[in-house]
Amino acid sequence: MSDSPLAIGIDFGGTTVKIAVVYQSHIIDQAPPIATQDFEGHEALIDAMVRVVEDLRARHHGIASVGVGMPGFVNFEKGLVYGLTNVPDWEAVPLKRILESKIDLPVSVDNDANCMAFAEWRCGAGRGYQNVVFASLGTGVGGAIIANGQMIRGMRHGAGEIGQSSIDYQGRVGHYGNRGSLEDYVGNSEITARAREAYTAAGIQKNLDECVPAALANAAHHGDTIAIAQWQETARMLATAMMNCCWLLNPEAIVIGGGVARAGELLFHPFKEHLFAQLSGPFKDGLMILPAAFGHEAGTIGAAALAREHASHRQVG
Amino acid sequence: MSDSPLAIGIDFGGTTVKIAVVYQSHIIDQAPPIATQDFEGHEALIDAMVRVVEDLRARHHGIASVGVGMPGFVNFEKGLVYGLTNVPDWEAVPLKRILESKIDLPVSVDNDANCMAFAEWRCGAGRGYQNVVFASLGTGVGGAIIANGQMIRGMRHGAGEIGQSSIDYQGRVGHYGNRGSLEDYVGNSEITARAREAYTAAGIQKNLDECVPAALANAAHHGDTIAIAQWQETARMLATAMMNCCWLLNPEAIVIGGGVARAGELLFHPFKEHLFAQLSGPFKDGLMILPAAFGHEAGTIGAAALAREHASHRQVG
Repeated sequence: MSDSPLAIGIDFGGTTVKIAVVYQSHIIDQAPPIATQDFEGHEALIDAMVRVVEDLRARHHGIASVGVGMPGFVNFEKGLVYGLTNVPDWEAVPLKRILESKIDLPVSVDNDANCMAFAEWRCGAGRGYQNVVFASLGTGVGGAIIANGQMIRGMRHGAGEIGQSSIDYQGRVGHYGNRGSLEDYVGNSEITARAREAYTAAGIQKNLDECVPAALANAAHHGDTIAIAQWQETARMLATAMMNCCWLLNPEAIVIGGGVARAGELLFHPFKEHLFAQLSGPFKDGLMILPAAFGHEAGTIGAAALAREHASHRQVG
Repeated sequence: MSDSPLAIGIDFGGTTVKIAVVYQSHIIDQAPPIATQDFEGHEALIDAMVRVVEDLRARHHGIASVGVGMPGFVNFEKGLVYGLTNVPDWEAVPLKRILESKIDLPVSVDNDANCMAFAEWRCGAGRGYQNVVFASLGTGVGGAIIANGQMIRGMRHGAGEIGQSSIDYQGRVGHYGNRGSLEDYVGNSEITARAREAYTAAGIQKNLDECVPAALANAAHHGDTIAIAQWQETARMLATAMMNCCWLLNPEAIVIGGGVARAGELLFHPFKEHLFAQLSGPFKDGLMILPAAFGHEAGTIGAAALAREHASHRQVG
């Protein structure tokens, strides 16, 4: 009976593929990462992934499922990868079918943001809530939605793209023709560019390196008023997109992760102020604003959790 | 066995309370409306509603449930009315409990927008879809969300407030402190005010009556370029809020009802253009944009449908 708490989680990134054995929410064995760009074509890379999985299975007894988080557009039910943002030769790859034929274990494949959200919802900051909005702030802005105790996927498994939602109907035209998309306001590069402009306007010359979110957080902690104001502005923009999620979904919890969220209270404090000032009682009373519990390991843990849950669902059904 | 297709639907409005016997999606007997403001306090009004219900039950055999749509904030599970927007003495009224004690039938109580959406989803334009976004455009802008084949209610039954979601993070501060709320751009009075301004700017003096949505639609049909431009601008604003719903929820269908939607293609044509221009393939391919199937009767039909479904659920459980 495969009620095993052990699963393999695979976090497939544009730079590396990380593969680990996960026990509940703990990574207990992390294999050396595979360099994504070392492989030409998806077949060779899948074979490399299978070798690492087999190696981990030889070392750990009772691994019952494998989960993969992919940085692109995925049909979760079929385990089909439609395409990846930064990796060539991954169009319409039936990853679940290929992996299951080589590994002989149930395999789940999902979008990486969904995996991170799943980790937070099942084992992390969002644990126990029925309605959760998750956002991951980094170079891109990803997200996922849990409502009525289920992950919402929508017609073609695209749901949760908070980064593409608009905060200004007259804003700049973004990647998909969408005006004023959140990602174009609070993505890493936009925060950096806006900060450098603000310094320049104040007569202070800074390199871009000195304006990246981590540097801005550091400067703000040391009392730099321009840096502090940048976090307040970022928080205000983020609050609008999240307020929209609240009016639409009335969640119990908002969980925010990703590199930009490491600014901590510099971001969270003004974010909460702007958010709560724009919601009525039933939407803000009891609403929890939570930093993500997991960092870089969220994708791996979530992929494993998803695989575990999906494999056991299949047995029941 | 109460698999009866007959239910009573009650559409409680600020002006009138409409009560009807509903067979599937057809109103088969509509009682004379009750004037809401003729009654001081909720108790006398509830008694008047009960008399009409008993009268209808005396005329129709097999009525198995009663549904009520309320213009305000409702706890659906408890059937508790927290408060109504335009009717005094309706704070924390346990309407379901009171009605069930007087009528001896299962009673469901929900928000009116949810009832309208339920009518469209179960019997109308959104029938058969698992993921639907519903908006009702009128004096206010209401909405509801169906995802994974369920109505999404959220933590405190507030979900679906599309009218309060923002299309401009720097916009005017609205009723709940929320900046740039859709309702403040495409509500009846805003459309009217904006149109009058546009006429004035063109040196044409118009009364407010000549600028209401119905008049604007009429003028546009007669080739009035200012009126046509007003519909295009309204469509653009609506498209932003709906685009956000699409990125977040990836629905199969958007259903739009309410008085403003009666402008038809004047609104729908530019709305679709703006919406589809701002979505990627998996979000727009197959997405249906549908005018609501029901008009003024949507609330009554939806309340009855909700009651029917909820009563039969209860029997199963």
